[in-house]
Amino acid sequence: MSELRRDPLLRRWVIIAPERRADLIDRRLKPAPITGDSPCPFCPGNEHLNPSEILVIRGERTNQNAPGWLVRITPDQRPLLRIEGTLERRGVGQFDLMSATGAHELVIDTPNHDAHWADFDVPHMERLLRSYLTRYNDLRNDRRFRHAVIMKNHGAPWSRYPHQHSHIVAMPFIPRRIDDEFIGAKEYFDLKERCVFCDALREEETRQERVIAANADFVAIAPFASGFPFETWILPRRHMADFGAIGERGLPALAGIFQETMSKLRTTLNDPHFSLVLHSGPLNGERSAEFHWHWELIPHLSGELGLEWATGVYFNPIAPEDAAACLREGVPLT
Amino acid sequence: MSELRRDPLLRRWVIIAPERRADLIDRRLKPAPITGDSPCPFCPGNEHLNPSEILVIRGERTNQNAPGWLVRITPDQRPLLRIEGTLERRGVGQFDLMSATGAHELVIDTPNHDAHWADFDVPHMERLLRSYLTRYNDLRNDRRFRHAVIMKNHGAPWSRYPHQHSHIVAMPFIPRRIDDEFIGAKEYFDLKERCVFCDALREEETRQERVIAANADFVAIAPFASGFPFETWILPRRHMADFGAIGERGLPALAGIFQETMSKLRTTLNDPHFSLVLHSGPLNGERSAEFHWHWELIPHLSGELGLEWATGVYFNPIAPEDAAACLREGVPLT
Repeated sequence: MSELRRDPLLRRWVIIAPERRADLIDRRLKPAPITGDSPCPFCPGNEHLNPSEILVIRGERTNQNAPGWLVRITPDQRPLLRIEGTLERRGVGQFDLMSATGAHELVIDTPNHDAHWADFDVPHMERLLRSYLTRYNDLRNDRRFRHAVIMKNHGAPWSRYPHQHSHIVAMPFIPRRIDDEFIGAKEYFDLKERCVFCDALREEETRQERVIAANADFVAIAPFASGFPFETWILPRRHMADFGAIGERGLPALAGIFQETMSKLRTTLNDPHFSLVLHSGPLNGERSAEFHWHWELIPHLSGELGLEWATGVYFNPIAPEDAAACLREGVPLT
Repeated sequence: MSELRRDPLLRRWVIIAPERRADLIDRRLKPAPITGDSPCPFCPGNEHLNPSEILVIRGERTNQNAPGWLVRITPDQRPLLRIEGTLERRGVGQFDLMSATGAHELVIDTPNHDAHWADFDVPHMERLLRSYLTRYNDLRNDRRFRHAVIMKNHGAPWSRYPHQHSHIVAMPFIPRRIDDEFIGAKEYFDLKERCVFCDALREEETRQERVIAANADFVAIAPFASGFPFETWILPRRHMADFGAIGERGLPALAGIFQETMSKLRTTLNDPHFSLVLHSGPLNGERSAEFHWHWELIPHLSGELGLEWATGVYFNPIAPEDAAACLREGVPLT
């Protein structure tokens, strides 16, 4: 029986309609064959197809911008925002403009063309997360930037290349969707003097209905008002607004829960296309009391974005409890 | 040269990147062949495949729920929200729920299986708009509903059937995306004592750069911070928050601008898949000073919704000025 659920953070209502589950299964993305361009610009030996390394984890006695690396970060070849130049702001009549200034870095997650995130062992996942963290904290030093995201798209048409890669984008403004989270978290905090994420974690840990995986430091859940089927969040148990503050000691447990969650997703949903993003506090350290960094992941299972675009009302045919149960048990979806 | 533009209403920044235009053209949706299920549930003679008529415009001496109609509105076969029952609200721990109560009506726009909106003559478009208006004002009488949208998806995968149809959905809450517009409009009004839409219209009429079409009562524009390539809005010149107040006299000019805009879209973008939605004030008449009803249309040309979902930052490779020029002149996009 369908119901409306209110997202406690984004203050939006989501239509959860489990009786439509059969639709989803019918129309579920048959993972379109990922067709590689050749040569793959992310494979070892093709380093010259990308700009020079900004950060790289590589074996001893290997050369810069040459094979031997394990994780490689370069400027993006075709950046959404450009690092060069001053940030310029101006008005035109009623309207406001800025130069498209920012940072856009490309992370090659692995030298192995065919490795999926679920194939990474925990030490490699840790290496990748450490690279993210280093760049994230470095970008913070550029005072032009107010916010940075780390994001990843897997599978066409969201991603052009099958070789696993991700993006770090620093922006001179707070993105709307993330600012909405800040506003929701602040309203909640103003009312209750508690973090909305900490409260949700407590609630989920008590009920256990929507928990997908957990370890000493992290929990993966299917959020109560999931706007997308099998939407998955990974949150630290400890209240922390800023991903940049996780520190070296936080990485093994985060790597562990990523490995576990990614394996479950691949098994349950037959290697779905997905998008993944880090939501962290503003780079200047504001919002530290009320915000709580986390990763959000949505598998791309449904093409129904008409209503979502038109109204911001999300329609989700898989109740998060059912999604969590499937993922937790690693049962392939049928 | 790319730049950041601030949406004066949604207060979000959009990356406008005309140098990426070639990408869009390459990857532009070849309109996937619309494959019809047979029999088409919307064709005359198949009325029994849908529920009974709520509102219909039909010829004299024709029977209810039988051929002879020109526009036909029924409850949706598989409603997103259900009209039956009381609206129930409750909490579960931290979380808030409502019953999935609302109205979801299906509008069959034409009896002609192959007619596109651009093929409708003005009298038929007027008929269709009159049907929308009647249902819209009727749904307002149901005090359970706070907001209603009229929306349409054209082309797979957004729409299941090629026969032109649309939806009217009434909801017991204000959808987030629309509430964001109300909030943006109110902030603007509080600051300037003027409507943000009226100001934008004045600006656009002066500059003429982003005007697509205009008549005595309506203007079609490519908004300054368009989040999507060829995003198109149709607005009344006269300040009015509530579409329901347009009245019989407003319909011919609205039908006219729809006809003109749809023809231009079809010509310029080779019959693109699109979504269209009415944004109007809340059903109870609030927001009358600061809001201004309008239709928003986006052609589905790009699949890049990763960043949009992840951050609410839109990336648009066609500057609205260029989009408006193409559409205004009806030049096919190459």
